[in-house]
Amino acid sequence: MEVYHFYSGGKDSSLSAYILEKMGYDVKLITVNFGLLDSWRYAKETAERLGFKHEVVFLDKIILEKAMEMCIKDGHPNNAIQFIHERALEEIAKRENVERISDGTRRDDRVPLLDQRKTRSLEDRFKVQYIRPLLGLGYKTIRELTEKLFVVEVKESEELEKSDYEVELRHLLREKGIDPLTIFPRRHYQSRVLGWRLGEPF
Amino acid sequence: MEVYHFYSGGKDSSLSAYILEKMGYDVKLITVNFGLLDSWRYAKETAERLGFKHEVVFLDKIILEKAMEMCIKDGHPNNAIQFIHERALEEIAKRENVERISDGTRRDDRVPLLDQRKTRSLEDRFKVQYIRPLLGLGYKTIRELTEKLFVVEVKESEELEKSDYEVELRHLLREKGIDPLTIFPRRHYQSRVLGWRLGEPF
Repeated sequence: MEVYHFYSGGKDSSLSAYILEKMGYDVKLITVNFGLLDSWRYAKETAERLGFKHEVVFLDKIILEKAMEMCIKDGHPNNAIQFIHERALEEIAKRENVERISDGTRRDDRVPLLDQRKTRSLEDRFKVQYIRPLLGLGYKTIRELTEKLFVVEVKESEELEKSDYEVELRHLLREKGIDPLTIFPRRHYQSRVLGWRLGEPF
Repeated sequence: MEVYHFYSGGKDSSLSAYILEKMGYDVKLITVNFGLLDSWRYAKETAERLGFKHEVVFLDKIILEKAMEMCIKDGHPNNAIQFIHERALEEIAKRENVERISDGTRRDDRVPLLDQRKTRSLEDRFKVQYIRPLLGLGYKTIRELTEKLFVVEVKESEELEKSDYEVELRHLLREKGIDPLTIFPRRHYQSRVLGWRLGEPF
């Protein structure tokens, strides 16, 4: 039972990868990149430390450019992030060999989040199962589990050593002469998963 | 990390118990009963076959009677089932020693289902984590996992060898001279988990 799991190297996508593996799936991690930055390498490094198979999937830069336009028009990144994630899910779901896709969406997330209609539409159009192991977990539960499982590094930094959509989106904004801080809220801290706290649990 | 998991002996609550155990929780199964029937014994038997700790929690019959009145007024059982489940969650959540509660709510369920507001209210009022391992899983995913994990018996029957709220609610309606079929949809088949397909997976 293979599952293709969207992976950023962060706590949520690492915790959901752990749960999927424990549920008996053959977990294949996927990090999406648009070819602007090598920000995918943080996710790849963490995936290797955790012992998961990992693949970088390069998507068309047009998606990121369209997302950037949405950002600028809206003055906030929510619709843009939602747009990128929906396109990314579709790109993987449409692959011939893919039967199951997954991500780290949490109960308390607002974006990216597919509602019931979009979830069923994705599953029906591409004949896939879309699995979200954290959707029924609140932030306290997720915090307790990640603290128990992972060594996490917290840094005070605007620089994102991360592999999520935001990194390249900020970069593209800067390239167009737009300060990302006019669109994204300021981040004081960022966290990164460095490895298992007590060795590989599988 | 103890979790008190609402358990009916059915496929959903068995699958979610499995996932919780795999996530590293110390799983305590709970079956709610109102003292009318010994329908809890189906859940207890299945819990024992699967190797989980199990406890029957007897709740005040007033809850069931109020639910019955809702059934009769509405002509369908949805609000009644929702009402019972909310009261049951609160009864366990309010216990001194309980930090985590859980149930088998699925992505495609309509009742019982706590929305975001009710979920957060439950967690805040009783200082608990409310965990729903199946909330991010669709019916195909759940079917695939349960078929892989469990030996399931399917019977053509109106008689429910089950330990869910419906059994005692139907009984109470019959006691009052009301045919449950005027309120509940007719069930042609019912399924029961009989044990692990490939031995205990822990």
